[in-house]
Amino acid sequence: MPEKLSIGVDLGGTGIKIALLSREGQIRKLLKFSTPWKAHPQAVVELIVEQTGTLLQTVGPRHIQGMGIGAAGDVDQTRGVVRISPNLGWKNVPLRDLLRRRFKKLSLFVDNDANAAAWAAYIVEAKRRVKNLLCVTLGTGVGSGLILNGKLYRGGSGSAGELGHMTLYPEGSLCACGNQGCLERYVSARALVEHVRRAIETGHGKRILRLAQNDPARIDPIVLETAARRGDGLAQHLWDQAGERLGIVLASVINLLNPEWIVLAGGVSRAGDLILTPLRRTIQERAFEAPAQCVKIVLSRLDQDLGVVGAGLLAW
Amino acid sequence: MPEKLSIGVDLGGTGIKIALLSREGQIRKLLKFSTPWKAHPQAVVELIVEQTGTLLQTVGPRHIQGMGIGAAGDVDQTRGVVRISPNLGWKNVPLRDLLRRRFKKLSLFVDNDANAAAWAAYIVEAKRRVKNLLCVTLGTGVGSGLILNGKLYRGGSGSAGELGHMTLYPEGSLCACGNQGCLERYVSARALVEHVRRAIETGHGKRILRLAQNDPARIDPIVLETAARRGDGLAQHLWDQAGERLGIVLASVINLLNPEWIVLAGGVSRAGDLILTPLRRTIQERAFEAPAQCVKIVLSRLDQDLGVVGAGLLAW
Repeated sequence: MPEKLSIGVDLGGTGIKIALLSREGQIRKLLKFSTPWKAHPQAVVELIVEQTGTLLQTVGPRHIQGMGIGAAGDVDQTRGVVRISPNLGWKNVPLRDLLRRRFKKLSLFVDNDANAAAWAAYIVEAKRRVKNLLCVTLGTGVGSGLILNGKLYRGGSGSAGELGHMTLYPEGSLCACGNQGCLERYVSARALVEHVRRAIETGHGKRILRLAQNDPARIDPIVLETAARRGDGLAQHLWDQAGERLGIVLASVINLLNPEWIVLAGGVSRAGDLILTPLRRTIQERAFEAPAQCVKIVLSRLDQDLGVVGAGLLAW
Repeated sequence: MPEKLSIGVDLGGTGIKIALLSREGQIRKLLKFSTPWKAHPQAVVELIVEQTGTLLQTVGPRHIQGMGIGAAGDVDQTRGVVRISPNLGWKNVPLRDLLRRRFKKLSLFVDNDANAAAWAAYIVEAKRRVKNLLCVTLGTGVGSGLILNGKLYRGGSGSAGELGHMTLYPEGSLCACGNQGCLERYVSARALVEHVRRAIETGHGKRILRLAQNDPARIDPIVLETAARRGDGLAQHLWDQAGERLGIVLASVINLLNPEWIVLAGGVSRAGDLILTPLRRTIQERAFEAPAQCVKIVLSRLDQDLGVVGAGLLAW
């Protein structure tokens, strides 16, 4: 009997990934696209239908276990509805029902992209050897998914995991969510880049600007990493501060939840030791000894593919 | 067949409670004692043995389901060992084995007192109608227990629930745990009282001092509540600030865990609306709308008996 496979879809505001995956989460085929203009739900569904057709050219539909979709936003997983997604510009989109009309016989699962990523980190990276895992996505924003007692933890209304909106500085800068001093305002790619752009406006950060070909719009975590590795003081300070700030909030989470693994993914995490060293130091300084010794902090190896792999794994 | 009962023991640094309980957590008999001098483990065990005898005078041992002990401190629940308890002055005390020698046929369970309290809040107060509950104890210190997905959540090494050592102010005052700006440093009974005593030293808080019969050592949450209710500005400010500060951290926990219930217990919680009103306002201001609407914040009705009731319920 041939191996059963699943289809994973990672649905973000700028890009969509569709993959054919083994039961263990190995990618057999991967397709990437830009999200259709204005991300109109029907256009997104058509794209998924069309590209799934391409994906399945060499695989019979009866070998497909099901399809899992990880969508950026607040998802009602039981009804398969994207309740709200600022990135997609969606509100109450019944994604599973829309897909159901086109995939009549396929099992369909819709969940939040951070939950999908956490599930992939748990199955593929931690290989289910631990029970409690936090998967942190340090991208344009800061998100997270939680595996607690070996299960995806969704909370009372399915909106658990908003690590980026835990308060770091109670009197800090205003966040779009309405709170002040959210972690996301300090350690997301957007926050780091904005910080540097402000420094440039006041005459600092010349070296970083040169690395960005004198175009502030080109400053991104990769430029900031390069600058720090070449000895730029501002960039080094920025990474050190980001690691410490993330460490302050993660130390709180470690004291509260005592997880065995924390997996970091997303553009900001790719700076590796630049952020990990101050992060680990801060956790040692601030968290209780027992849970600080218990927790392993790792960079995701799947990283950008966590979402699509996790979405596919949710179909099992 | 007569009803089966359980024995609950709440083991704290200053007092011990032993109760006979129904399966639903109703107290049939309750005994209270001071913790023996220096809380020597053998003396504590002897006290429990002796008083359990008193408790069982009218109940045959075969009607007893088992005994649960909730101990203040870090407990290894699988081995029944109190790993460390600053309140009892214990380190690696094999409490279950010590009790086993005296209660040969009884099922014995040892857990952390905050976990026991959370379990009682879940079974007796929330009546298992929700899946995710945080039980906060606002006493001399600040502790908590978590029920997630309908189960006691212990974390990777059994030390989850240290809400009091989540960071409120990253640059705040040093805590005995080694961290800076822990929540406990701002909203525990000890913190509130210390704050007022410092105010008195600088010539403020005269009204509060009078209510404490001019003895700063007599200032406690009850005095501070009375003062606030009689219109004392300092006391009112203190409660308002405590509610807001607790609200900042709980808003973070609500964004991360999206619990359906938060139960408040302990001396500081007895101020009721004085702390609840600013607390709820802060959560509305700072937490995401969906999880903020999902969560119900209540005062525990069992309050001081949560620990002993929960300990007994753990025996089932």
